[in-house]
Amino acid sequence: MGGNTFGKLFSVTTFGESHGVALGCIVDGCPPGMELSEADIQPELDRRRPGSSRFVTQRREPDTVRILSGVYQGRTTGTPIALMIENRDQRSKDYSNIADVFRPGHGDYTYFMKYGIRDPRGGGRSSARLTAATVGAAAIAKKWLRNRYGTEIRGCLSQLGDTVIPFGAWKFTSGNPFFAATDDANLLAGLEEKLDALRKAGDSIGAKVELVASGVPAGLGNPLFEKLDAEIAAAMMGINAVRGIEIGDGFASVAQKGSEHGDEITPDGFLSNHAGGVLGGISTGQDIRVAIAVKPTPSIRLPRRSIDSKGQPVTVETTGRHDPCVGIRAVPVAEAMLALVLMDAVLQHRAQCADVVLPVSPVAGDLPQSGPDR
Amino acid sequence: MGGNTFGKLFSVTTFGESHGVALGCIVDGCPPGMELSEADIQPELDRRRPGSSRFVTQRREPDTVRILSGVYQGRTTGTPIALMIENRDQRSKDYSNIADVFRPGHGDYTYFMKYGIRDPRGGGRSSARLTAATVGAAAIAKKWLRNRYGTEIRGCLSQLGDTVIPFGAWKFTSGNPFFAATDDANLLAGLEEKLDALRKAGDSIGAKVELVASGVPAGLGNPLFEKLDAEIAAAMMGINAVRGIEIGDGFASVAQKGSEHGDEITPDGFLSNHAGGVLGGISTGQDIRVAIAVKPTPSIRLPRRSIDSKGQPVTVETTGRHDPCVGIRAVPVAEAMLALVLMDAVLQHRAQCADVVLPVSPVAGDLPQSGPDR
Amino acid sequence: MGGNTFGKLFSVTTFGESHGVALGCIVDGCPPGMELSEADIQPELDRRRPGSSRFVTQRREPDTVRILSGVYQGRTTGTPIALMIENRDQRSKDYSNIADVFRPGHGDYTYFMKYGIRDPRGGGRSSARLTAATVGAAAIAKKWLRNRYGTEIRGCLSQLGDTVIPFGAWKFTSGNPFFAATDDANLLAGLEEKLDALRKAGDSIGAKVELVASGVPAGLGNPLFEKLDAEIAAAMMGINAVRGIEIGDGFASVAQKGSEHGDEITPDGFLSNHAGGVLGGISTGQDIRVAIAVKPTPSIRLPRRSIDSKGQPVTVETTGRHDPCVGIRAVPVAEAMLALVLMDAVLQHRAQCADVVLPVSPVAGDLPQSGPDR
Amino acid sequence: MGGNTFGKLFSVTTFGESHGVALGCIVDGCPPGMELSEADIQPELDRRRPGSSRFVTQRREPDTVRILSGVYQGRTTGTPIALMIENRDQRSKDYSNIADVFRPGHGDYTYFMKYGIRDPRGGGRSSARLTAATVGAAAIAKKWLRNRYGTEIRGCLSQLGDTVIPFGAWKFTSGNPFFAATDDANLLAGLEEKLDALRKAGDSIGAKVELVASGVPAGLGNPLFEKLDAEIAAAMMGINAVRGIEIGDGFASVAQKGSEHGDEITPDGFLSNHAGGVLGGISTGQDIRVAIAVKPTPSIRLPRRSIDSKGQPVTVETTGRHDPCVGIRAVPVAEAMLALVLMDAVLQHRAQCADVVLPVSPVAGDLPQSGPDR
Repeated sequence: MGGNTFGKLFSVTTFGESHGVALGCIVDGCPPGMELSEADIQPELDRRRPGSSRFVTQRREPDTVRILSGVYQGRTTGTPIALMIENRDQRSKDYSNIADVFRPGHGDYTYFMKYGIRDPRGGGRSSARLTAATVGAAAIAKKWLRNRYGTEIRGCLSQLGDTVIPFGAWKFTSGNPFFAATDDANLLAGLEEKLDALRKAGDSIGAKVELVASGVPAGLGNPLFEKLDAEIAAAMMGINAVRGIEIGDGFASVAQKGSEHGDEITPDGFLSNHAGGVLGGISTGQDIRVAIAVKPTPSIRLPRRSIDSKGQPVTVETTGRHDPCVGIRAVPVAEAMLALVLMDAVLQHRAQCADVVLPVSPVAGDLPQSGPDR
Repeated sequence: MGGNTFGKLFSVTTFGESHGVALGCIVDGCPPGMELSEADIQPELDRRRPGSSRFVTQRREPDTVRILSGVYQGRTTGTPIALMIENRDQRSKDYSNIADVFRPGHGDYTYFMKYGIRDPRGGGRSSARLTAATVGAAAIAKKWLRNRYGTEIRGCLSQLGDTVIPFGAWKFTSGNPFFAATDDANLLAGLEEKLDALRKAGDSIGAKVELVASGVPAGLGNPLFEKLDAEIAAAMMGINAVRGIEIGDGFASVAQKGSEHGDEITPDGFLSNHAGGVLGGISTGQDIRVAIAVKPTPSIRLPRRSIDSKGQPVTVETTGRHDPCVGIRAVPVAEAMLALVLMDAVLQHRAQCADVVLPVSPVAGDLPQSGPDR
Repeated sequence: MGGNTFGKLFSVTTFGESHGVALGCIVDGCPPGMELSEADIQPELDRRRPGSSRFVTQRREPDTVRILSGVYQGRTTGTPIALMIENRDQRSKDYSNIADVFRPGHGDYTYFMKYGIRDPRGGGRSSARLTAATVGAAAIAKKWLRNRYGTEIRGCLSQLGDTVIPFGAWKFTSGNPFFAATDDANLLAGLEEKLDALRKAGDSIGAKVELVASGVPAGLGNPLFEKLDAEIAAAMMGINAVRGIEIGDGFASVAQKGSEHGDEITPDGFLSNHAGGVLGGISTGQDIRVAIAVKPTPSIRLPRRSIDSKGQPVTVETTGRHDPCVGIRAVPVAEAMLALVLMDAVLQHRAQCADVVLPVSPVAGDLPQSGPDR
Repeated sequence: MGGNTFGKLFSVTTFGESHGVALGCIVDGCPPGMELSEADIQPELDRRRPGSSRFVTQRREPDTVRILSGVYQGRTTGTPIALMIENRDQRSKDYSNIADVFRPGHGDYTYFMKYGIRDPRGGGRSSARLTAATVGAAAIAKKWLRNRYGTEIRGCLSQLGDTVIPFGAWKFTSGNPFFAATDDANLLAGLEEKLDALRKAGDSIGAKVELVASGVPAGLGNPLFEKLDAEIAAAMMGINAVRGIEIGDGFASVAQKGSEHGDEITPDGFLSNHAGGVLGGISTGQDIRVAIAVKPTPSIRLPRRSIDSKGQPVTVETTGRHDPCVGIRAVPVAEAMLALVLMDAVLQHRAQCADVVLPVSPVAGDLPQSGPDR
């Protein structure tokens, strides 16, 4: 335990701090025989790495991933796959002036209260930099899910501050845009202007990210506690700065009636997807729809009141390299977490239900009728 | 695995179906030496049981809990505590007419797709009735947390359909109201009228539930994946019908700036609580603030289109005993899940950090300075 | 946690004390669709229950098992299966005279040191009576393994005190003999005489139990820590009174040479089975061979020195109903534990490797060539 | 899952293959604030590394360990500690001639049957080389246990083939002897002669290793399945080549009577330790006594019959660099596994029982009377 492992059967155990020697992870439980090389993983890391535009932190990290084990002659062997990313631009400057100060809105205070000690260099273990290891691990899951089921997981920025980015303007970030709305030049210009203004003011802004997973087999998840949506909720809320999570209609469900929300079914499939692809904690075979709220980063230049570890009042002005909107880089991270949840759910499902053969597929077309692990 | 256990160190494994012989759970890992009897558990079950007002299902279940093990001479022994609740009013009627039909918005279809078989009697394992076992187990956690830290966990209905129940009107459901707003006679009358109209129309409505946990020690949670807020999100999303979850400001954070959201700290404590009591995945010692969206129950009298297990179209009209707003009875269940998360986090924390002694308490007054498991 | 759950994917969580209201377990993760009723479970319980001959404890318990959940219309549904066995002959006598005394060789002292409190009635949770729940759960695993792979797990008493029971005399206890050697009248008479003498003397004796599992698919287990033999070792050492465990040649391997021990392979199969069916932590497809050492029960009539919970010296004479050789009833329990290990290993295996299709079966005859979970 | 993680609360997840780029592990759950550097870990690795005498494999590996994370300014921070050891002498020779052959007595065949693919270079993941990561992780546990409780864990070779090394001749391998019996020149000469003869003959031999852990607090372990001795058994059987495990009197218990085996207690302590320091699955506070049987390595020069992956017969002569008696290097590995079990048990214990305060210490002298996590 210790809170650094994700997944029960496709499990990812991570290590590293923002300014340590290296960060990485061990992926255990990967099915054997899949073609895998660094070339499958690096593109996902590139989508999330810093320094890629003026709207994300200017830290220069190539984030070059190395596979240390678990692959032989280009194929996974079923043994643990270790991934390592060395830190390059960690700037081993003198941290003594901030080592003793709790930055407001950060984990500094809570880490100190838990452990009685913390690594102050760049936020230590609480830095969003650690998501690199997760994104690397999830690239393996994404590939396997795509090969096996045609699953695609795509996210986009759907709101930046109070600017909603309408669905028509989304461009899913499977390429590498810094955000999604590249089809609408006016909207894009407005967003850039907004971010520039924030950067100048030394402030930051929140964002909403939406995700869609298509090609998800029906039947994934569990009845009571480890429901598929519960696992997704945990995965999303575990991403740095996330404060809210919705599946399907989410909070809009509060004002809906049952006659409006409940998705009717016909022999040709579901007529709607208010549920977001999960009913009773188990996938329906429809798209999984997820939205998350990402808070504004607390690392801002404006002065903030805080205390030091002796309880004395201090003023904090964070002058380092930071994202004005951490929501932008949260997109590939959220996709990664969703991939890890689905991968684990598939392995869990076939452990218990590999023998289940449905007598007939009730909904035409979209469901495999039988087979070892539908 | 199988998805029926919650918690790693204070773990609750449940069993039962809506219309089976009995339901219950095994609580493993409970600290020894605590006074415990059925009288500690029954009141929590009574808050959640059906038949208590005309706005909840009219099924008549006394929900009488029995402790089968783990208690000797009125004290917990540290060995597993088994709780059992017999089903009385299960109406073993003929289910053959619905056994083959997938009710829209229910888990019928997904259970079938997962297992190739399902128990159709009253929803089987997917019924909200199963939350009784969880509520029973959580009563033990609530008592322990209250004894040890003075922790109080209180929930209320803060919105019913589009009617927001203002904070001033909340009455926390630590008594046994069917919902929270008993102080405002006009509001209450309006809500009752609304529910009566829904019942007559054969429809249902969504709701929002809010929770506050006070007296939570700082330092609970984990850095990366098993963050305290991630565990809370999983717990909440695992409750039947929940579609959204917020910690602290939740989705309101999207439109906030960093200078507004980040909670400043002074020697006298935090100046605000936008974070909802969790920073970096670890508790701050402030109140934990949680909100959940509960969808309208899909069990409605109005006719709905669906299919049977052969893929043939059918019309479903659910005429059984059902809640017009499942959000009402979700209140004690949500409190229960939050209690289980906190209990587990405390045990996890002291496993790793029992020896941590802080040199000084940085925030005056609200933190124990040292001790085995602050 | 708390130590009362066995298995990761086919998991058995147990509850109960020797003289409590009831004991039982929850089996989670059972594959759906298998025919199951109490009639599948009761015979295994009958093999292990007390009172069946004059050589086991005279406590009268019918050990009638009831399935409380997880089965619908005679088939498993994939949801938790709860088993309950009520205690009948618990003799709620006054335990105050022994409540404060640590019986030598028992867990009394260690439970007290761990929990600061213990249930003294009949040994509480440390009683061998608790193995009933395990045996019940394992009956489900045994049935599934037999149906799916033709797996048979059989144990016998191979040594009682210093009397070795030669292999030719074994009768596997799949019937219900109180021990194995019923084919050899002289041997049997000698063993009965020995046990009678011990009973008269108020003493007890150790035993060795051997197990063979046939029809175990190759490929079960894991590389490093959760090796199949490691899981078997944990399962066996977890049985009350077990002090040693061997796989294959066990301690005889110490004096062997590599040229003697290493099992050669031919196209027709392995030429020997010194390894006991496990190499590198993974099953070979040969018989799994296990032996365990069961210590003499410490519950004897002869006076023993001990202390009470105040540290004062006392003399203990255990006059209750006890087995002169607990090894006899350990046979079905050991079989049960082995079944649980194999069941869990199968589910683990197909989670990760359900897609593996071998190009060709290297050893003729004994291996399925392909398929979802060979 | 995947079988590469050991421990629940002090958990060690390992990666690597014999001839891969590197091997290592992530230690999660380590208590914060302990002084730690590579200098604490390297000596344990040096005891186990190859090339240290002519009786172990001549592979030249410095086994230099690097801490990649989890330590700040020389102290553990409570976040994951990653250890990495680069492989140097991996001889990337052409393995094509053996890639397709199953070496008798090795995991080659079983890995192939499980995964359908295997890394043949030096045995891949099944190589004893992988124990280096475990030994490194356990050095952290050993230091913590020593600091906190004065726990010492010492192992020695007590039998080599049929030569028993009498207790008086043991020298515990806390220094770095290749085996234990350095005090008795005649015995040593005999053992060396024996090993030389085996090496010349191209054969190998089994061994017995015994361990003693002193300074273990009473109260560690669990009641039913995760008993302390069960966890020890799993840990030991998981070491490469181990075929048997005993706690306390082990298989000698079979021929003992209850009046002989049961350890009597007096106010001054236990009068004997037949139980080996564990009763009812929980530690007594006495020395933990463990013995393991290590089979002769199957890597021998003598020709052996086997098959290739097409099922064709082949003759295998293993000419690589190998240990004539793997039992020698098993000593530090066994100590390491025991340390990991005890460390995890301590953390588990204080999670549940940190508040237990015994009214009085029943056995004079050897037990702390109260405190957070005895």
